[in-house]
Amino acid sequence: MAVNLAAPSADELLPVTGIRLATVSAGIKKVGRKDVVLVEMTEGTHTAAVYTQNAFCAAPVVLAKSHQQQQATRYLLINSGNANAGTGEAGMQAATKCCDAVAKLTNVDTAAVLPFSTGVIGQPLPVEKITAVLPEAVDALSTDNWFDAAHGIMTTDTIAKARSVQLVLNGKTVTITGMSKGSGMIRPDMATMLAYIATDAAVSQAVLQTMLHKAMNQSFNRITVDGDTSTNDACVLMATGQAGNTPIENITGDDGERLLNALTELCRYLAQAIVRDGEGATKFISIAVSQGQSQEECRQVAYTIAHSPLVKTALFASDANWGRILAAVGRSGLKDFDLTKVSIALGDVSIVEQGQPAKAYTEEQGQKVMNDAEITISVELGRGQAEDWVWTCDFSYDYVKINAEYRT
Amino acid sequence: MAVNLAAPSADELLPVTGIRLATVSAGIKKVGRKDVVLVEMTEGTHTAAVYTQNAFCAAPVVLAKSHQQQQATRYLLINSGNANAGTGEAGMQAATKCCDAVAKLTNVDTAAVLPFSTGVIGQPLPVEKITAVLPEAVDALSTDNWFDAAHGIMTTDTIAKARSVQLVLNGKTVTITGMSKGSGMIRPDMATMLAYIATDAAVSQAVLQTMLHKAMNQSFNRITVDGDTSTNDACVLMATGQAGNTPIENITGDDGERLLNALTELCRYLAQAIVRDGEGATKFISIAVSQGQSQEECRQVAYTIAHSPLVKTALFASDANWGRILAAVGRSGLKDFDLTKVSIALGDVSIVEQGQPAKAYTEEQGQKVMNDAEITISVELGRGQAEDWVWTCDFSYDYVKINAEYRT
Repeated sequence: MAVNLAAPSADELLPVTGIRLATVSAGIKKVGRKDVVLVEMTEGTHTAAVYTQNAFCAAPVVLAKSHQQQQATRYLLINSGNANAGTGEAGMQAATKCCDAVAKLTNVDTAAVLPFSTGVIGQPLPVEKITAVLPEAVDALSTDNWFDAAHGIMTTDTIAKARSVQLVLNGKTVTITGMSKGSGMIRPDMATMLAYIATDAAVSQAVLQTMLHKAMNQSFNRITVDGDTSTNDACVLMATGQAGNTPIENITGDDGERLLNALTELCRYLAQAIVRDGEGATKFISIAVSQGQSQEECRQVAYTIAHSPLVKTALFASDANWGRILAAVGRSGLKDFDLTKVSIALGDVSIVEQGQPAKAYTEEQGQKVMNDAEITISVELGRGQAEDWVWTCDFSYDYVKINAEYRT
Repeated sequence: MAVNLAAPSADELLPVTGIRLATVSAGIKKVGRKDVVLVEMTEGTHTAAVYTQNAFCAAPVVLAKSHQQQQATRYLLINSGNANAGTGEAGMQAATKCCDAVAKLTNVDTAAVLPFSTGVIGQPLPVEKITAVLPEAVDALSTDNWFDAAHGIMTTDTIAKARSVQLVLNGKTVTITGMSKGSGMIRPDMATMLAYIATDAAVSQAVLQTMLHKAMNQSFNRITVDGDTSTNDACVLMATGQAGNTPIENITGDDGERLLNALTELCRYLAQAIVRDGEGATKFISIAVSQGQSQEECRQVAYTIAHSPLVKTALFASDANWGRILAAVGRSGLKDFDLTKVSIALGDVSIVEQGQPAKAYTEEQGQKVMNDAEITISVELGRGQAEDWVWTCDFSYDYVKINAEYRT
């Protein structure tokens, strides 16, 4: 059960001129499940992408990076159910064969196709199953297929994650539509997360890449479910330039700023959606750390709290066990750290002041905050001006159940 | 259910000449539960100790460190059920009052008493309950009370952890008896772990401290249950010098080496016992990392694997999901890391060779290893000669249950 997250309806997801999608069923894991998504971009589309930081990159990530450097991208081929990771040379060949097949059917170079895979690690990719359904996929390409595509990229997700926003740039309506997937193995600098976002705005390649990084730093790079980063993460931003707006060449201009803001909001929604649908999640947690010496140390403290199994199980139990939070702060490895400067609040209830239990605090106040499905933990370090934050979820029986049974 | 760990019997635990113990019930958490342990050392005993690295030290840790610097220790006062952590100035006063009470009853200085607390964080220590039973504790002091004491220091432990070993040093029989507690919030450089080890050997103060560090590096500092380090950890080694052996002034001498070996074996048993009784543990896991550039990076990889919720839940499910292990290795943050040099084995079954799935590997082989209650994961990094290892356990429903319900 995702936390305060509704599935999108098909008609909320607006087509993006210049982008066509198709979702078909290759029977990779289960017969009948839609598990292959093909995305087509019109010629002239700019593409920006960010990939996993895990040294153990899956074959499709290696290939997608290489293809992207060679030429402009025209197709994305995404499969769920198999990550094509830990598959060695055979995995590279399998990913290449899939791209080849798309290229032949659509008359583009193989390097114009980027492959993406998500699912179980270490199993051979069933290339024939995928290539067998590609003709059907090419035939089915259509601008209004975002809803099905958002379902086609799901693995342990319980709910599809997608949204559209519109804004007007010099008299032209610009659309941004995006989808994401992922619910476990989530940690920043990309995680088991795939996200595909398209806009019809005209944006230069350089600005597009900068926008993606800026938006991700306020969204996908601030989420964690279990601290495990994946081998397959990718976030792709496409701009088809079909909206007719004056091309954005400068991120600090008015149009650039407005497009970035809209993109950031969309990414925040999609990133939050992943945490809200975190494996076994029953609560959505924001952890805000301020008064640090650097943004980096604030983030370090926030992640130490966010990854503490003891904090996460206390959140699951709605137990205002703030001692576990304080203990996590204490072990987060800051240099010359003075606990007597630290204050902590749960929601708007102060629980620790200057390293001591807040005098006015009562268990009832803490309990009231913990009963909510959305909880903010605020930590003041009392040693500087920097701040940072992360989003995470709690740790429940179902997390264990989902991950203990995932392959069986 | 602890993994392959039997409770000690009372007669296995040998008295250590010069050490008397008493275990009484103060009703700190539950009426009738034995929750206060008093340990008395004869005059002339040398004491070495190591305390938590968590910046958020509990009051008793702060006080114990200070007392130990002031004079020779004569008494340890240990309570379970309340950690006296996150309790601010009031916590320091509470710990001091308890030490005062012991000091008055036994005619020693307050600084000759070291306080230790374990249990829930952030609750006021019930000083009156503890001081009320101290006269009874002093009266009950006896050399053969290790069995009861091992029970008295337990919190979420399901089984008492204690053992004795003996050796002969220049014709004199020397005894070492130790006990430990802890099963969650366990991570090296001390964790929610208390350990008290006594020997009647004559050992100089300097050698004793060195021995404790060396033994801990092969035992308590190599275990993790959930990555959470605690605010209260301590390990105390006492040497009463009553055995009549020639005093050990040199750790590299024959006697010093033999005593260190025996101590290390005892510490390894007690440390393993904590992991075997890890909260919700169903498996005991050894993670050995070799061919690293430094011992430190080997340890870093080992802990990344040991702390991965995805690896731990796969171990719980007896699922040979080696992709999760490889993904954890990949995100462990080593510089200039080449995954194509990495090999991984489960037990004696090779699963990854040079970054690729081992050709001869079958799921059946992996499954056979995973069905065991004791599993070794071996990782060769292929970039150096260093090695290191850690012990951990799996991650089960019961971990969540125990930690979600601990305070209720």
